[in-house]
Amino acid sequence: MESPTKSSESILFVQTFLKAWSLQLKRFTQLVDELDDVALAKPTAPGRNTGIYILGHMIAVHDGIYPLLGFGERLYPEYDALFITSPDAAGKPYPAAAVLRANWKEVNNRLNERLAAIESTEWLARHNAVSDADFAKEPNRNKLNVVLTRMAHVGYHAGQLVYLKEKVED
Amino acid sequence: MESPTKSSESILFVQTFLKAWSLQLKRFTQLVDELDDVALAKPTAPGRNTGIYILGHMIAVHDGIYPLLGFGERLYPEYDALFITSPDAAGKPYPAAAVLRANWKEVNNRLNERLAAIESTEWLARHNAVSDADFAKEPNRNKLNVVLTRMAHVGYHAGQLVYLKEKVED
Repeated sequence: MESPTKSSESILFVQTFLKAWSLQLKRFTQLVDELDDVALAKPTAPGRNTGIYILGHMIAVHDGIYPLLGFGERLYPEYDALFITSPDAAGKPYPAAAVLRANWKEVNNRLNERLAAIESTEWLARHNAVSDADFAKEPNRNKLNVVLTRMAHVGYHAGQLVYLKEKVED
Repeated sequence: MESPTKSSESILFVQTFLKAWSLQLKRFTQLVDELDDVALAKPTAPGRNTGIYILGHMIAVHDGIYPLLGFGERLYPEYDALFITSPDAAGKPYPAAAVLRANWKEVNNRLNERLAAIESTEWLARHNAVSDADFAKEPNRNKLNVVLTRMAHVGYHAGQLVYLKEKVED
């Protein structure tokens, strides 16, 4: 088997990463789709975040990747106050589950279109939350690192959301 | 700012990825360290896996990466039967928490030493659970993909283990 050239090597790194990212998004979306609105409204464990809050939180975080990578304005900046800087609270007027389900797909489709078009060298450029000086010292604080971290974050909340699925059939 | 050469580009991809992987392992280990043995013995949610089971499961999975990437034999093959192929069960004679805590660090230290030494081209070679024919069709089924998937898996179970932490001080 021939070694890939250095150029195709970088492209393969990016392709492998984007496939893994897409798989995690697909699994999270399947999990959301399997839960009905009644299930999503429940806490994932006693005293812990509801499915609705977790879904809103994921939308806010993935929407926030857009400006961080220099793609432009985000779609739902108002979700930060609801789902990132404030804790989950019963009785809060959250958007309807149907709205959040649609937002989640919209935000990821929009983001993934842009991610698919990043050149391999550009993945290694700094993201917008790190200064040039800090980036010179820590070159791993690049765009790839942002999405890698968010990929683990998808897993984190998928592990919680799965607790809304019935374990035993009634 | 100069573009990196193609060769240094691949090295930066690998470095960025390994830093993100190490960060996830560090966070999971901190979480385990913050939970005492009494907390670890509890279910993470009613009717769900205990902290002990999740810790054992993580050891089994990370130990299993070793042969998958062609590094050699694993340390604790007997953990598969306890923590992967069988569900968590009260009263089962699981290893003591102190043993599992030590195993977790041992397995990751051993693995990370080998991961740090993989050449960038080698990350894109097939892993031992995919045939040459399948790999020709799906070149993303490489060593990098194995560890990317395991990184999301660390997040998944970290999101569950965190439910063992007290939310409110008594």
